[in-house]
Amino acid sequence: MRDRACRFERVVALAGGIGGARLLDGLAAVLPPGALTAVVNTGDDFEHWDLRISPDLDTVMYTLAGLAHPERGWGLADESFRALAMIERYGGDTWFQLGDRDLATHLWRTQLLRAGMRLSAVTERLYRALGIEVRVLPMADLPRRTIIEATDGRRLAFQDWLVRERASPTVRAVSFEGTSEPAPAALEAVHAADLVIICPSNPYVSIDPILGLDGVRSALRGRTVVAVSPIVHGQAIKGPLAGMITSLTGRPPSAAAIAAHYRGLLSAIVVERGDEAGVEVPVHGTATVMGGRPGRADLARDVLRFAESLA
Amino acid sequence: MRDRACRFERVVALAGGIGGARLLDGLAAVLPPGALTAVVNTGDDFEHWDLRISPDLDTVMYTLAGLAHPERGWGLADESFRALAMIERYGGDTWFQLGDRDLATHLWRTQLLRAGMRLSAVTERLYRALGIEVRVLPMADLPRRTIIEATDGRRLAFQDWLVRERASPTVRAVSFEGTSEPAPAALEAVHAADLVIICPSNPYVSIDPILGLDGVRSALRGRTVVAVSPIVHGQAIKGPLAGMITSLTGRPPSAAAIAAHYRGLLSAIVVERGDEAGVEVPVHGTATVMGGRPGRADLARDVLRFAESLA
Repeated sequence: MRDRACRFERVVALAGGIGGARLLDGLAAVLPPGALTAVVNTGDDFEHWDLRISPDLDTVMYTLAGLAHPERGWGLADESFRALAMIERYGGDTWFQLGDRDLATHLWRTQLLRAGMRLSAVTERLYRALGIEVRVLPMADLPRRTIIEATDGRRLAFQDWLVRERASPTVRAVSFEGTSEPAPAALEAVHAADLVIICPSNPYVSIDPILGLDGVRSALRGRTVVAVSPIVHGQAIKGPLAGMITSLTGRPPSAAAIAAHYRGLLSAIVVERGDEAGVEVPVHGTATVMGGRPGRADLARDVLRFAESLA
Repeated sequence: MRDRACRFERVVALAGGIGGARLLDGLAAVLPPGALTAVVNTGDDFEHWDLRISPDLDTVMYTLAGLAHPERGWGLADESFRALAMIERYGGDTWFQLGDRDLATHLWRTQLLRAGMRLSAVTERLYRALGIEVRVLPMADLPRRTIIEATDGRRLAFQDWLVRERASPTVRAVSFEGTSEPAPAALEAVHAADLVIICPSNPYVSIDPILGLDGVRSALRGRTVVAVSPIVHGQAIKGPLAGMITSLTGRPPSAAAIAAHYRGLLSAIVVERGDEAGVEVPVHGTATVMGGRPGRADLARDVLRFAESLA
């Protein structure tokens, strides 16, 4: 697109980390300026080294700024870990790998939050400083924490489960603690949207935290909502999703399981070509695995054209 | 020494930044293990990027650990400034140059202080982690801030004056805000000392903050107190001392001005050979400019032998 008029003027994309960030990057490239608002999961946010860390907001920011590490799925390209090595020498926590440049993001965010700025405003300031024009909103201004309830009886903060324990405890349930109030601008954006895209992010820990906020599900009702499946041929591109589907639903990971999870919410779903079987809503099979920026823009165009065809 | 018995068993050295740190390093090398306690100025401490920074404690720590930058007089050798460059991109404060490895020190100290640990205990933990065996105490556990009163009428926090304004506003007076209570172990150490050495540090902003704490001056009374002049042939090796002497006393910078500043407190003073003129207490002229570690040990031996000769 950008070569021809897009039917949609107010697109809202709900996103978590890396898969969501990459599709957002593609949508930003093909939609007209001002048409896209991203609402990003903050359920993974936590405090570490007394700093406020927002992993998904940062993955999206680094990706949109073209600064993300190309393979790792988190953090910056051209990163160093010299502060971390020194913290290790002091006997501090090193299970969460904070790079030197990344550290500046958390230091600056923490300063602004402590000075009384809302997370929405802090996010806008950080993104602008890196030259990002897309409007990106945290799902909530106050903390809402994703809790992993493990089959061994423990309730683990999300990063403890994912990073410290390397996602090895089997997940029995996912719950949330904290505010249920969405960031005001995020809810307004959903109310005004003529298309909502659910990015290829983990439904349980990236999208459900957003959907569970007060008023979000009812704001989605009656709108065109298109999901992109994060499961490709039975596997997750990144992260612990495949194992979570198995442990939470008893079903093997599939695009159909994703569609079933969002039952009642979706107008349609975009899946990897060949993954259409068993999907109970209108489905579009295409190449969903994004490589670099051209692949992201290709998928974004494809999703938007499919969404137009639904009208 | 270490080659022969030292008369002194409990030496207390009062110190500020780089000059003090280097003499401490020499004293640590020549005194028997356990004989030396350093009491270090914390009047320069401040908050920056929401981190608690203790410049003199860190200069001493890096120097004693053999990690200090060899020329710069602050920070670590083999340092990088990648977080700082990113903070600059975000529009944050960059007038105080925090290196990536140095940042770890402030992050870890801040975490421990916020967890409720006293600065004395935090300092002990940091020093031990870097393998330092000398006992180093902050002068106070609570903040006591050095304020520079400038001739233009402004009252500047010390780092604002020294670093942000490059020590250019002329100093009319130096005052202190905050606690007047010394760290308990620091006062005990002075009470138990058989020799007190005032390191070649700035009297106004490194040593006076310590001397002004409740009970310190009276604890020094009757003890052997030997200062080492930080002025060499009319100049300060590092820092803004020479200009401060001129603006605060109306006299040119000299070893005699240092001895006069400490009037009533000193048993004797060690000065650079040739700088003895006008000194009103017993004086020992020697080579006081320390180069690397051998030069520091040489000066330490010289000061200790001179102190022995006073008995």
